[in-house]
Amino acid sequence: MDRRIVIIGGGAAGGTAAQFARKTDRKAEVTIFEAGKYPQYSKCALPHLISKTLDNVIEFDEKWFERANIELFLETVVEKIDRNNKKIVARRGTETIEKKFDSLIIATGAEPVVPHIKGIKEANSLVNGVFVLRTLDDACAISSFLPKVKRAVIVGAGAIGLEMAEALHKFNVKITVIEMLPSILPGMLDNDMGDILQKKIPSDIEIFTNHKLIEVASNGSAVESVVIENEEGNRQAVDADMVLISTGIKANVELARSLGCSIGEKGGIIIDKKCQTSVKDIYAVGDCTQYVDFVTGKPLLVGLGSMAVKQGIVAGINAAGGNAKLPEGFLQTRTTQLFGIEIAAVGPVLNQRADKKPVTGKFTGSSLPDYFPGGREITVKVLVDPKDGTLIGAQAIGENAAQRINVFACAIMNRMSANDFVKMETAYAPPIAPTLDPISIACNVARMRYGRK
Amino acid sequence: MDRRIVIIGGGAAGGTAAQFARKTDRKAEVTIFEAGKYPQYSKCALPHLISKTLDNVIEFDEKWFERANIELFLETVVEKIDRNNKKIVARRGTETIEKKFDSLIIATGAEPVVPHIKGIKEANSLVNGVFVLRTLDDACAISSFLPKVKRAVIVGAGAIGLEMAEALHKFNVKITVIEMLPSILPGMLDNDMGDILQKKIPSDIEIFTNHKLIEVASNGSAVESVVIENEEGNRQAVDADMVLISTGIKANVELARSLGCSIGEKGGIIIDKKCQTSVKDIYAVGDCTQYVDFVTGKPLLVGLGSMAVKQGIVAGINAAGGNAKLPEGFLQTRTTQLFGIEIAAVGPVLNQRADKKPVTGKFTGSSLPDYFPGGREITVKVLVDPKDGTLIGAQAIGENAAQRINVFACAIMNRMSANDFVKMETAYAPPIAPTLDPISIACNVARMRYGRK
Repeated sequence: MDRRIVIIGGGAAGGTAAQFARKTDRKAEVTIFEAGKYPQYSKCALPHLISKTLDNVIEFDEKWFERANIELFLETVVEKIDRNNKKIVARRGTETIEKKFDSLIIATGAEPVVPHIKGIKEANSLVNGVFVLRTLDDACAISSFLPKVKRAVIVGAGAIGLEMAEALHKFNVKITVIEMLPSILPGMLDNDMGDILQKKIPSDIEIFTNHKLIEVASNGSAVESVVIENEEGNRQAVDADMVLISTGIKANVELARSLGCSIGEKGGIIIDKKCQTSVKDIYAVGDCTQYVDFVTGKPLLVGLGSMAVKQGIVAGINAAGGNAKLPEGFLQTRTTQLFGIEIAAVGPVLNQRADKKPVTGKFTGSSLPDYFPGGREITVKVLVDPKDGTLIGAQAIGENAAQRINVFACAIMNRMSANDFVKMETAYAPPIAPTLDPISIACNVARMRYGRK
Repeated sequence: MDRRIVIIGGGAAGGTAAQFARKTDRKAEVTIFEAGKYPQYSKCALPHLISKTLDNVIEFDEKWFERANIELFLETVVEKIDRNNKKIVARRGTETIEKKFDSLIIATGAEPVVPHIKGIKEANSLVNGVFVLRTLDDACAISSFLPKVKRAVIVGAGAIGLEMAEALHKFNVKITVIEMLPSILPGMLDNDMGDILQKKIPSDIEIFTNHKLIEVASNGSAVESVVIENEEGNRQAVDADMVLISTGIKANVELARSLGCSIGEKGGIIIDKKCQTSVKDIYAVGDCTQYVDFVTGKPLLVGLGSMAVKQGIVAGINAAGGNAKLPEGFLQTRTTQLFGIEIAAVGPVLNQRADKKPVTGKFTGSSLPDYFPGGREITVKVLVDPKDGTLIGAQAIGENAAQRINVFACAIMNRMSANDFVKMETAYAPPIAPTLDPISIACNVARMRYGRK
């Protein structure tokens, strides 16, 4: 009998798992149950959909799945899983769907954390004018609401918050960004790097770091203002007809928990190198899982599309009888573009590293040799182990930051030291890069610092 | 007594050596003898000077050297070196300069190879209208001659030949490029990649691959045409009022040879990891040297600015009493930009690898996810060891080719396999790069091929 693989969740992780299960076993019966109404789309592209930079975020449409011979059930909610008999019962409208499975892949994703703040919810729903941005439906709701927005408050200066600041800025919305931590993009940049970025953001966007949201005030049907508070406890009101909550996500693990899968300290489903949960024949992938941070060896909540895809590939292959493995840990290579500036990072930021104090090296320079016109600014910061100079993180702001950070991802994966890194020849040509690339110079700065110890 | 360091040659290698000698020993007496009339300038930028993209190629002027307390003698020719007494005699015009040294650094560079072709030279000088491009003087001569040029023949489709094709194209010169090998940019790209590049070059530039130059025909004072010949021996004439010979360089080693330094099979001065020649206290750096190819372990003529700078750093530090080492070998990370297209490579090309036949993986795709507007084409090709999939080379044409190749430089330096490479998370965000970067996909193609063996 042909192998039966059921995937719960049709996002990037689940969709990729389906693809690779299909590639691995051409005869397997591959089924996806997706609760939402859209086939696989890019969550990361939603701010760009709202900004009207693009008009489509669907990556693989229903026809694509049909051609790939993957059965895709949309708007279908899993009701019951019989783990012993390997049977799943799902509901689409009034229809009941039953499937037997040999392998199950859980890809239930994550959902926004909405803090318990006065005035943010009413009868367990967000107050009119308060939004989160996680799904395509969220994006559509924001887009519909946008024409009447004059002032928006964005709570959380992470990638989504700032990407949304840029999107709303295009529509001439007056924007205020509130961030609890001392600097912006704190999951990606150290404070000093966050400050460099902040100076490049249009000055008509108001940013309050070290502030938290205290209250959302509505006039019955519409948001009117918010109250924020600084570290000293001083409060002020900010007018707003829209509030976006972008303060993080939590993994959706209830289904996995009900099946007996172990949940980790970060709140994600625990998986091994094969994406296998603690329960035989049940895999988990994407934002609902936690894995290992390559650099620290500690648990890491998986929250990046790139990791989700890597997991989808591995789980899909294994569920279909193949043999694939994740790397020892994830590097957290990540990037975003804000107001035309590329920002990228790999490895934990300083304030996520309470265990040891890395030596850092930072360099700001031109992307081109001094004598060549058209050079653009790039700042590169590296974090190295104070013991032996092993690279453990890097951050970059500016020209080609993402591909430059990819070089560091490769270096970190190979446990390369800053000392060895500077020996590497980087590509040089006057119209493209200087003889000593900023990535090498930043390492050299770090190298001299740990060398002196 | 303070240490005395004499450097012969003030190009990138020699100048960098002087800088790092100075940094290492603040009290040393550092002297450069440079035969040309310019302080350290960028040879790689000369085509861009001719195209008027920039108007200055000087990287460090005389004042810079003065401030750094480095004695720079321009237009100064070394006449005699007394190796036993460590004394050097040089001549500047009518002036004789004598210097004692503790360490000598030879940075005599390379010069263009001018093939023995009928009509190319007259009384040991190039015929009027025939040029090479190596020095700033060469560039000035070409620039002065340019206003009367209507048709140019460029012999050699390497980086300099093609960069000059682009420069002359801006001045509406009708251009013909002759290349002996089957495809363009043969030192950087395999034939299939060269063919991809050729299709992107403006069609009014005539390119004859598999052709060689047979004769240059002049009318007494000016070039009139050239004769070229294909593989079958068929000849044709091409009208030309200018001919640029860009068929390669040879290392200037006569001075080193006269001092007893060993010269290698590639024609360069042999150096060790410390940039030391076979003679004690004599170092050599830059285009006059040969070192080791990291990938093949075989001798490699050093002909890239990036390598020259790495050597300059090492030799400068060591000559000043420090302790620095080159990597085991050079990766040959290299790049150029032609007609707005970035091209980059690392490691030997296929036809330089007679020893074993690498498995290749090639991928052409968009620099952005399919659904995101503005993606640009990128082709990535990787070469891997058929035995174990270890990456041994990579080539890229298109968006951010250089930084993408830097990732491979890092991977190759760490002897990473294509299999491990695909596990690495590359930076993903819709406006910047797809979830699976073309660099990963190319590795995956190669991986599947060697995995099947």
